[in-house]
Amino acid sequence: MRVRRRKGAEEHLANHPQFVVSKPEDAKGHWHELFGNNNPIHIEVGSGKGAFITGMAKKHPDINYIGIDLQLSVLSYALDKVIASDCPNVKLLLVDGSSLTDYFENSEVDLMYLNFSDPWPKKRHEKRRLTYKTFLDTYQQILPEKGEIHFKTDNRGLFEYSLASMSQYGMTIKQVWLDLHASDFEGNVMTEYEEKFSNKGQVIYRVEVSFNS
Amino acid sequence: MRVRRRKGAEEHLANHPQFVVSKPEDAKGHWHELFGNNNPIHIEVGSGKGAFITGMAKKHPDINYIGIDLQLSVLSYALDKVIASDCPNVKLLLVDGSSLTDYFENSEVDLMYLNFSDPWPKKRHEKRRLTYKTFLDTYQQILPEKGEIHFKTDNRGLFEYSLASMSQYGMTIKQVWLDLHASDFEGNVMTEYEEKFSNKGQVIYRVEVSFNS
Ligand SMILES: C[S@@+](CC[C@H](N)C(=O)[O-])C[C@H]1O[C@@H](n2cnc3c(N)ncnc32)[C@H](O)[C@@H]1O
Ligand SMILES: C[S@@+](CC[C@H](N)C(=O)[O-])C[C@H]1O[C@@H](n2cnc3c(N)ncnc32)[C@H](O)[C@@H]1O
Repeated sequence: MRVRRRKGAEEHLANHPQFVVSKPEDAKGHWHELFGNNNPIHIEVGSGKGAFITGMAKKHPDINYIGIDLQLSVLSYALDKVIASDCPNVKLLLVDGSSLTDYFENSEVDLMYLNFSDPWPKKRHEKRRLTYKTFLDTYQQILPEKGEIHFKTDNRGLFEYSLASMSQYGMTIKQVWLDLHASDFEGNVMTEYEEKFSNKGQVIYRVEVSFNS
Repeated sequence: MRVRRRKGAEEHLANHPQFVVSKPEDAKGHWHELFGNNNPIHIEVGSGKGAFITGMAKKHPDINYIGIDLQLSVLSYALDKVIASDCPNVKLLLVDGSSLTDYFENSEVDLMYLNFSDPWPKKRHEKRRLTYKTFLDTYQQILPEKGEIHFKTDNRGLFEYSLASMSQYGMTIKQVWLDLHASDFEGNVMTEYEEKFSNKGQVIYRVEVSFNS
């Protein structure tokens, strides 16, 4: 997703330090302090305009959520939603998912979401996919033993790739949905992309996988 | 699949000992002798009316194929196809997939196919699904180290179940197709069920998995 540069996005983020962590490196190992409680921490990498992360925060007040995206303008739209929802249990982080170990201590994150990640369909771009093995290395470090990733997408190629990549990494599929919206899955919170692509009639895939150590 | 009893099916099988192994227990450890060569042995469990196994045998003369089904009448229809094709590299076996270790020595089978297995959608019938863990135990014994199963189906529930069951067994997904007929997969040989359900517009799923030892 490419989004037009939004004027004043930088100031917008800077003006809301309660929601947007300004010095991400300093937060490493201090996330529970920043949230002011010891509740579990769930992150979404590539959170886009924030519908999922704010929806989850409203629904689960006893969990702390962090939306992570590397696009300034995109994150500033997510901030609009966070401000509107006024939930104390959600924060935003403007960093690259490949560097999460710079911002999170080992096992500091309890669960991780990937939603409608950029598919990078060309083979030569495989390394950019958020389920490529170097990304899995990073996620494993910040998650606890047997930590889980919950991933959904409408993109068949990316989903096929990700199932194989995660399995070959040694991860275990706990459950998989090949048509989420036709299933009896409860409590689904839609993302912007999910809304858009399911309206177009696309099937939504979902998987819950865990690391084996 | 339930098939009406076919008159004379038993005699039909008995009359073609070159294709239908009459004393399966005696074949254990002797399959290469029975085929008269040392080519790899591939089996299909639940081979139905035999379109896949005869199609594969024609296409790959250097591989020995064994179609396995527990329904006498069904296997007799497969025999018709085998006779018509007159391939020397295909045999049929009237046994239950749960007892394969009675008919095959450890590692005697090189590769195994499951196609459109009965879905047994009710949770209380889980143990009858051909991808339930007790079946996987059996398959692992007759396959070599890191042996593979290639599985296809149109049944979403069974496919979802099987991915999780095989992953939790410790198997690795080598590749998965969530719409086989829309993919660039080459050399697909259709089964009877595949023909029927893809004509109805159903998506066909396929996966190649390997044991980890
Ligand atoms: C296709 S959008 C999906 C957004 C949202 N999850 C949804 O489902 O509506 C993918 C998002 O991931 C972000 N992204 C891509 N690569 C990233 C990375 N390496 N680290 C953090 N965010 C990334 C993009 O900036 C974009 O906002
Ligand atoms: C739905 S049919 C599919 C037939 C064929 N593979 C196809 O795709 O057209 C399933 C077949 O599996 C056979 N079957 C079911 N359970 C079996 C078992 N435990 N051992 C051997 N065959 C079995 C049934 O008799 C039936 O012929």
